[in-house]
Amino acid sequence: MRPEAPRPAGLGGWSPPPLRPVLHLTSGMLLALAAFMLLPAALDAAHGHPDWKPFATASLGLLAGAGLLFRATRCPLAEGLTLRQAFVLTPLSWATITACAAIPLYLSQHPGLGGSLTNAYFEAVSGLTTTGATVVTGLDHAPPGILLWRSLLQWLGGIGIIATAVAILPALGVGGMQLFRTESSDRSEKVLPRARQIATAITLVYVGLTAACALAYLAAGMAAFDAVVHALSTISTAGFSTSDASLARWDSPAVHWIATVGMLAGALPFVLYLRALRRDWEILRDPQVRALLGLLLGATLLVAAILLVRGVYGVEEALRHAALSVVSVVTTTGYASADYTKWGGAAVGIFFALMFVGGCTGSTAGGMKIFRFLVVAIMLRAHFLRLLYPRGVFPRVYAGRPLPDDVIGSVVVFFALYFFCYGAITIALMAMELDFLTSASTAVSMLSNVGPGLGPLTGPEGNFSAMPEAAKWLLCFAMLLGRLELFTVLILFMPRFWRG
Amino acid sequence: MRPEAPRPAGLGGWSPPPLRPVLHLTSGMLLALAAFMLLPAALDAAHGHPDWKPFATASLGLLAGAGLLFRATRCPLAEGLTLRQAFVLTPLSWATITACAAIPLYLSQHPGLGGSLTNAYFEAVSGLTTTGATVVTGLDHAPPGILLWRSLLQWLGGIGIIATAVAILPALGVGGMQLFRTESSDRSEKVLPRARQIATAITLVYVGLTAACALAYLAAGMAAFDAVVHALSTISTAGFSTSDASLARWDSPAVHWIATVGMLAGALPFVLYLRALRRDWEILRDPQVRALLGLLLGATLLVAAILLVRGVYGVEEALRHAALSVVSVVTTTGYASADYTKWGGAAVGIFFALMFVGGCTGSTAGGMKIFRFLVVAIMLRAHFLRLLYPRGVFPRVYAGRPLPDDVIGSVVVFFALYFFCYGAITIALMAMELDFLTSASTAVSMLSNVGPGLGPLTGPEGNFSAMPEAAKWLLCFAMLLGRLELFTVLILFMPRFWRG
Repeated sequence: MRPEAPRPAGLGGWSPPPLRPVLHLTSGMLLALAAFMLLPAALDAAHGHPDWKPFATASLGLLAGAGLLFRATRCPLAEGLTLRQAFVLTPLSWATITACAAIPLYLSQHPGLGGSLTNAYFEAVSGLTTTGATVVTGLDHAPPGILLWRSLLQWLGGIGIIATAVAILPALGVGGMQLFRTESSDRSEKVLPRARQIATAITLVYVGLTAACALAYLAAGMAAFDAVVHALSTISTAGFSTSDASLARWDSPAVHWIATVGMLAGALPFVLYLRALRRDWEILRDPQVRALLGLLLGATLLVAAILLVRGVYGVEEALRHAALSVVSVVTTTGYASADYTKWGGAAVGIFFALMFVGGCTGSTAGGMKIFRFLVVAIMLRAHFLRLLYPRGVFPRVYAGRPLPDDVIGSVVVFFALYFFCYGAITIALMAMELDFLTSASTAVSMLSNVGPGLGPLTGPEGNFSAMPEAAKWLLCFAMLLGRLELFTVLILFMPRFWRG
Repeated sequence: MRPEAPRPAGLGGWSPPPLRPVLHLTSGMLLALAAFMLLPAALDAAHGHPDWKPFATASLGLLAGAGLLFRATRCPLAEGLTLRQAFVLTPLSWATITACAAIPLYLSQHPGLGGSLTNAYFEAVSGLTTTGATVVTGLDHAPPGILLWRSLLQWLGGIGIIATAVAILPALGVGGMQLFRTESSDRSEKVLPRARQIATAITLVYVGLTAACALAYLAAGMAAFDAVVHALSTISTAGFSTSDASLARWDSPAVHWIATVGMLAGALPFVLYLRALRRDWEILRDPQVRALLGLLLGATLLVAAILLVRGVYGVEEALRHAALSVVSVVTTTGYASADYTKWGGAAVGIFFALMFVGGCTGSTAGGMKIFRFLVVAIMLRAHFLRLLYPRGVFPRVYAGRPLPDDVIGSVVVFFALYFFCYGAITIALMAMELDFLTSASTAVSMLSNVGPGLGPLTGPEGNFSAMPEAAKWLLCFAMLLGRLELFTVLILFMPRFWRG
């Protein structure tokens, strides 16, 4: 990343970084968003549904506005961004894009959204952050445009977060992400140029996986529209469905297993797919991938055993529903093929704990991310050995390389900050007199971008529309905070950041 | 600590450390315990209550048994213990002493204990770990011997844990406690000799504070017996009362404020009292003390504000009950002057979060301890600055001295292990079909040695006697695990530990 040119400090030491390139990039993304809005518009128009108008209006308005901004802020980007510009870009672009994505949902006045600005924004944030918590009621009878738009947002958010995790966060050194710095994302170099190449390749993989998933759903007997919408929200590990009953609407083992495999595919590090295409099978050796698979297998068998012991299902169903639910929660998708909150206390406790974990970094999954738990496990082992052999030297190795001290420190700080934010959000929800299980589970579900919580209100069979208005706004903040790995958002609240 | 002499490995590499000195020390402590048992025996005899017999029987039996063991294992202790011996000593002595302390409770067949072995052991563990969760019902009509014994256990446990935290844990380097190594407790030196001197001085301070507290309660109008029993469980931040209603039984501002100040006195680092006696006022500058006072003040004002806004109390009562409850939870005492679970969601959430914190290390308080949060806060600040100035150097300073990397690592590992154990215990309780609030709050309450949880069953107005049998045993383990700072217990489960 290039150093910032010294500039005279403004009033009261206020000296924000030059925002021109940041606005230019953001308006470019808004143009893309506006173009995508034409898809639901066309779909609704083809179905003769009046909802094509809000989508078309929003798209044209946004094309005009963002187009003007894009032209007005034109500047040479070959130089890359400074550190502070990159820090501003991430939350600013996400805030702007979520706001604009909510416009057609607000304009549509669809009864399932209640014509509420809060609901429209909540749904847009839940979509773009790939969370998948919904406030739309009566999905089974919703117009196709809205259903497509919701899943498109998740799909776009998914690729957006992969790009952020691959190109931006490692360079910023956020929460231990410097572990995933490649030659291209080293802090001393420029971020953008090679990032664009990688982004293109990853986008192709992403499109390919989505297409494969859609075809598989189709082959398993889903209607074409349902197959496409679900593929969009499966590979993005996001979880919006076309039915209030989520995947329980399709009582088909094939559909459920396709969803399970699809969610897993979305939760693996996408750069490793690129290497696999070059016949480099690191994806089979990567510690994150192995730990994720081990966790999923262990948790699935445990939950399946609970289901069998309690006599809820037979063997096939127990394995299928356990696998889908565990993979759905760990990959932070939020699909449900059954209401797992009714599987007894132990299962509820396990799902609660799994919501914190999350998938691999560099994927569409949220949560605290597997690699951070691996770093802590490596430290735990070294600490026990040190207790026994005080004079011994125990190297801390990750993926065959020594773990730098600053990565360890960053990971720890990430954990601390995560739990601090988690506690604050939980207490805030409790202050709105939501019950403890709802507050505690919804807070982690939003921060980890899972989707459903565990109480009756926000559980896999619930709907967020009944949450208090203030809670919805808080949850929007929580979803963005979690999605952007805390630091990128919170650093903007440091006065020192703006003093340059 | 002295190195261990090499010995031939036994069967299958099994080679435990020489246990003779460990057994000698443990039997010495049991002799002291047996002597203390004569106090409740004498009290019950004086009141003409038949319960003097179980206490006398247990005392004489224990004096004989422990006396024999003490003689049989006589050995020169001037050499100190090896590292592994010290690791064995801590959990072994605590397990043995809790078991023996339960004998008179079991023998007494007091109806409030239901003649149950589980209840007797639970009460003994809850006492010695200074937790204060009780299974005894009908405290207001219980014989004086049992009431005195329960509080005596807490008082003995309190001084025991200070000794452990000052003399043993820093030398073992457990969970960042090496930060509190003094010249006397360095790993390269012998633990016992100077530890004994410090222990004597600290014991005098402890006795002095307890006497002052008892006199204050007496002056505030408590009966002499109640004053003594409460003083024993106040300074040990433990929380057993002589009434089912805890301190709500005394509707007296003076009693409540004395309890608040007394609990706070028990939660400060006792070595700093020794320095204050030498006119070294480090106790006013210590980062732990300052952070604790700041936290208590902030939380008290917040909770009092909630009480005022909700119209529960007037100003005086709001401040008094808020201060007592906050200090009670943070110092992990567990007294209640009111049922704070009925103060609304925000208050419940705040008390839940406070249960994790705990007091200062080297005091009788439990929990994760203030200094570990300070270490994390120092890291958090350094991390944010590093994000802004990647090439800057930000020293991490604690109490004017640089924070060593191994302390940071140990603190982090402690947090990770704490949350892991916390999650496992919560899930286990949920598997026994206890509700989520009860499970989640009781798990932290036991690990942090607070006492009451937050559900109706284990809340400040509840009683643990209705918990399932299996849950009680699990909670006994949790109390010991938390009290001994996790590592000292868990290291014994490493096969490598026993291979020498």
